[in-house]
Amino acid sequence: MQGDTLLIKSGGAAALTEWQHHFARLLPGLRVYGWDDPFIDPRSVKYALVYQPDHGRLAHYPRLKLILSAAAGVDHILADPALPANVPIVRMVTDETRERMSDFVTFAALAIVRDMPALVVAQREGHWANELTGRLARDTRVSVLGLGELGSAVARRLHANGFRVNGWARTPKALAGVNVFAGEDQFDALIAQTDILVNLLPDTLATRGILGRRLFARLPAGASIIQVGRGAHLDRQALIDALDSGRLRSAVVDVFDVEPLPPEDALRRHPKVLVTPHIASTVSYAARARQVADVLGAHARGAPLPFVYDAIRGY
Amino acid sequence: MQGDTLLIKSGGAAALTEWQHHFARLLPGLRVYGWDDPFIDPRSVKYALVYQPDHGRLAHYPRLKLILSAAAGVDHILADPALPANVPIVRMVTDETRERMSDFVTFAALAIVRDMPALVVAQREGHWANELTGRLARDTRVSVLGLGELGSAVARRLHANGFRVNGWARTPKALAGVNVFAGEDQFDALIAQTDILVNLLPDTLATRGILGRRLFARLPAGASIIQVGRGAHLDRQALIDALDSGRLRSAVVDVFDVEPLPPEDALRRHPKVLVTPHIASTVSYAARARQVADVLGAHARGAPLPFVYDAIRGY
Repeated sequence: MQGDTLLIKSGGAAALTEWQHHFARLLPGLRVYGWDDPFIDPRSVKYALVYQPDHGRLAHYPRLKLILSAAAGVDHILADPALPANVPIVRMVTDETRERMSDFVTFAALAIVRDMPALVVAQREGHWANELTGRLARDTRVSVLGLGELGSAVARRLHANGFRVNGWARTPKALAGVNVFAGEDQFDALIAQTDILVNLLPDTLATRGILGRRLFARLPAGASIIQVGRGAHLDRQALIDALDSGRLRSAVVDVFDVEPLPPEDALRRHPKVLVTPHIASTVSYAARARQVADVLGAHARGAPLPFVYDAIRGY
Repeated sequence: MQGDTLLIKSGGAAALTEWQHHFARLLPGLRVYGWDDPFIDPRSVKYALVYQPDHGRLAHYPRLKLILSAAAGVDHILADPALPANVPIVRMVTDETRERMSDFVTFAALAIVRDMPALVVAQREGHWANELTGRLARDTRVSVLGLGELGSAVARRLHANGFRVNGWARTPKALAGVNVFAGEDQFDALIAQTDILVNLLPDTLATRGILGRRLFARLPAGASIIQVGRGAHLDRQALIDALDSGRLRSAVVDVFDVEPLPPEDALRRHPKVLVTPHIASTVSYAARARQVADVLGAHARGAPLPFVYDAIRGY
């Protein structure tokens, strides 16, 4: 890719310096420009690495061959109504993504098992709440919705921690130690056997708003939610109502339809909720640059590309 | 043990009902009394199951054969200056104790890896702190001080989560996946290779105040502490100073020299500390009753007793 141009919109000016630092080492011939660089010839842009690209901009580069998402999801790219239809989009999935997501979900599941939302409130209010002894991981049923790259890694890690792990996928698959439910037919049966629900579904028309009233009503009373999927999955008001009524016990929510979540948002102030700022699977620049270099290398050789977005499947 | 008497001081009146419920099923012939029951003949008491027994009281029972601690530690019993010297003390170690401690320490280590103390503050204050991406478990060195029943189980679980696990014991031992340091000679070398220190040492003269200025000065800058040992191990002011100076990054503290920790205590309000109310390894009454039944059964048969306190070793 000697002389090819990669255009980057991901993380602002300071991040651009960091991306350039990594690519100078990994792909010395590649020319790397920032999104708002005034000196780019639009006809020179072959690759774009983006997060939330301005609508209409990607259609401006007539020789664009590949769009690389700077994050695991691609909804932030698909939202562009003028997105060129003939350019493949590659999702950002790295080994580090799997590790970070597994670390985070295991943290969140153990935090729920040990009633951390209530313990955090007790610490703040000065109560010695030693009646909050929680339960055991090995007595707790965790159901992972979505058994792709991330869901499978998460399910394996939860199993290694002794949790009783269920999983749900569109089509049947075998995963050691995981009780797999498949297809719409088995969805409600899974939900009914769930103490902690982990959402790692992709964002498709079928999954929008899935963390909503219908699902919460079907979970066993006292279940908890870990939301690490996409923002469009969660009906925030339905979650608040289910927590307030006591139907759900607690939630760890990392991903929202509006980000940053406003300071005054009711979820943020809710005593049964741990809110984190979409950091569950944030991957280092170094690991993402390595992955981009691998993808560009495969593209230059004409080899198959990994993690290409498929509009039919929806992820 | 038909007709033998077990005297219980653990958890108050409501707890006594629960203990009696379990023993009625497990050991139908055993007579179970509460600590302040006025109708006990002191000469009938053969077994005592206690937490923080009133000083001098255990010396009152001339035929006492066995003291069972209601908790993993025995310092709350040894504090009695009139403790009868010729009665064995059995520590409460159950399979559930190991599981709960492993769940808790894994939770705490992942919480530290993901900077949860700072994220909890950000949630409360309404900041979207998405620069707090933390690090990976697999890049993090965790050192477990004390490789007894609990420490070994904790080390195994941390290893299963990808942490780089070190351990320290008085004498060398082999533990799969754990880099074991032994004896005083190797203590400082271990400390120098530690990102997260887990204290699970017993309470002995040699370990009092071990989580203090000397140790904190030898940890790498930015290390964190998980205190799940005994209250006497921790110098609270030294910890606060090390956090305030930036030498230590964060701490999860479950055990204190004063409990309940007063509401106005500085650790409780510290933004780099998660405080929990001594619940790391709190075990259900059902599991503890099963363990007591096993010990009393072994005692009645004249079989060796498990987990007997050894005054020479100090645990």
